Amino acid sequence: MFGFQYAIGALDVRATGGGTCVQKRAAHYPSVFVAVRRRRHRVTCCVGAPERAAEGVVAAAASPELKAPRCVLLDQDGVLWHGESSVEGSADAVKELRARGIRTIFVTNNVRFSRRGYAQKLKRNGIDARPDDIVTSGSALASYVKSKHSDIKTAYVIGEPGLVEELESVGIRCFRHDASTEMDEALFANLSDMSKRTDEDKQMQLPERCDLVAIGWDLQFSMAKMSYASFFVQKGALFLATNLDAQDKSASGYLMPGTGPMVGALECATGRAADAVIGKPSALLIETILTEFGVERADAMMVGDRLDTDILFAKNGGIGSVLVLTGCTTEQELAELDPSDIRRPDHVFPSLAHYVAALPSPAR
Amino acid sequence: MFGFQYAIGALDVRATGGGTCVQKRAAHYPSVFVAVRRRRHRVTCCVGAPERAAEGVVAAAASPELKAPRCVLLDQDGVLWHGESSVEGSADAVKELRARGIRTIFVTNNVRFSRRGYAQKLKRNGIDARPDDIVTSGSALASYVKSKHSDIKTAYVIGEPGLVEELESVGIRCFRHDASTEMDEALFANLSDMSKRTDEDKQMQLPERCDLVAIGWDLQFSMAKMSYASFFVQKGALFLATNLDAQDKSASGYLMPGTGPMVGALECATGRAADAVIGKPSALLIETILTEFGVERADAMMVGDRLDTDILFAKNGGIGSVLVLTGCTTEQELAELDPSDIRRPDHVFPSLAHYVAALPSPAR
Repeated sequence: MFGFQYAIGALDVRATGGGTCVQKRAAHYPSVFVAVRRRRHRVTCCVGAPERAAEGVVAAAASPELKAPRCVLLDQDGVLWHGESSVEGSADAVKELRARGIRTIFVTNNVRFSRRGYAQKLKRNGIDARPDDIVTSGSALASYVKSKHSDIKTAYVIGEPGLVEELESVGIRCFRHDASTEMDEALFANLSDMSKRTDEDKQMQLPERCDLVAIGWDLQFSMAKMSYASFFVQKGALFLATNLDAQDKSASGYLMPGTGPMVGALECATGRAADAVIGKPSALLIETILTEFGVERADAMMVGDRLDTDILFAKNGGIGSVLVLTGCTTEQELAELDPSDIRRPDHVFPSLAHYVAALPSPAR
Repeated sequence: MFGFQYAIGALDVRATGGGTCVQKRAAHYPSVFVAVRRRRHRVTCCVGAPERAAEGVVAAAASPELKAPRCVLLDQDGVLWHGESSVEGSADAVKELRARGIRTIFVTNNVRFSRRGYAQKLKRNGIDARPDDIVTSGSALASYVKSKHSDIKTAYVIGEPGLVEELESVGIRCFRHDASTEMDEALFANLSDMSKRTDEDKQMQLPERCDLVAIGWDLQFSMAKMSYASFFVQKGALFLATNLDAQDKSASGYLMPGTGPMVGALECATGRAADAVIGKPSALLIETILTEFGVERADAMMVGDRLDTDILFAKNGGIGSVLVLTGCTTEQELAELDPSDIRRPDHVFPSLAHYVAALPSPAR
């Protein structure tokens, strides 16, 4: 339909259409989210082309509706960097936003690092940020537990150390097996009998029950971890997931398993859906951010590179959305997107720098 | 509705109704199967009570429609044994079937062992059987590859040694990582570059491509295995799964992750559905068995303990079905089963021994 035209007219139509859709669908987003979750085994994968923007696609022109927001929520991977490489111009674009008095909040589904860790990664990419400027699906999960389930004291964690660090920062004692833990049927049969547990279990003082099972992306995901998590869920633990991203892109262009396959596996194994999924595109996360940072819905704009997380996140939360093409989403995917698809972004730009450059000058 | 009455009348109604359902739905089973697959994350789990049959539930009476079949397909776990304990009377029941000239074929979704391994396990449980009397989802997968994809020479296997043994028996070279294989992003990015592969990969001469990815239940399922399998699927390998069982029951009554969580995870990670799922309840398997053993549909009866695999398998394949209560399915689940549910068994008995005892005497 609209292909990849950065012409004003095309953007207008889209921006207006998109806005209407958001209004219409805002009331229904829980069911939309459910539909997306149900479809997650078929989520279109994303093979990005960060170099494409640099090749000089037609520069985006500002849509008449493009207003300077008071707050920009920024996805990280695919917008600010791509694996270990910075996206050119992004650090300066963040500086420019701040120079204009626009608040920048960094939002990621990745739980590899804690907020502290991401502050360091941002710094390595030329962006100064405090941990308080950063929201990971792990920090949001910890906040969610703290505010909604303050009685939770122990957690069994499938996830990277960043998730453990966030949970510990709100006073939750975390248990996590390492990669070397092997499972056998005899062990599983005896999970509830502490006297028959493995030496490793005894050494880590693994309890017979955990109040919470928290699951995020984990390079050491294993049958052992899935079995322990399943056991604790069956014993009544709250079951929270950081996100349902189906895949992550490797530097070679192949897709790596994301968090979605792990959460889906645990749901299948327990016969129970996660009690809540915290990260993008969950509306839970946007409500948390708007409340925590004191931002009005109309003042916020989400900038990201993925339709199924970033743009859907904005739509689910009823805020504006900008898709940049420095990450996952290809021109081809955009061209093939059904006009009625809720994941149509309000605006499309080759990069964050192009978006910031296109923002109307502030009345100084 | 029918609760747990073994009275003739109740069984009549059910048998007739069930028969009609099968006829009506036979033409539609592919879509039913798809529906079941879609629902697999919600498949009702099975917490069995093998001791219940021994407690003396009302003895089953033969339904007038209960005829002696020429061939009985027997599920193993939950019918012949339960973990490491034999189900009382089952070995004698198998002998009685054979004494009456009824062919017995042992059918399992488990790939822990090969057919040779199951022959040994049957022997330990008092049943003499040749490997040729046994069909595992692994042996069926190997037969399927041999008959439909004879050009396949190499396979990356997620699964227990039984699956590898079956594939090797039809001349396929198998590659399988062990539990200690760890994954990192750098390794994944370099999977296509043999010079950067791990020492383990080089030692096992892991190729750059595999013709087939075969996935079955695997106690050592891991992110590493999922990543390698995902990589080979993305490079174009045929993607076959042994089965989609959501869970297995441990001796302590807790549910262990079955094969379904692993297959679903790989489907999510690759963004692609398995090209075929071979084991119960797939109609593929029943067609293979009927052809291979030269059995007419009307002459076969499936005996099993699970609605979602055994009984649905019989229904999908258009053969008769007997549910026994020595395994997964509880009286409660049967009572709650919707009358229109395709998984309603034609007959219900406390055990295999009860079924065999209820068969009409042969005209000698």
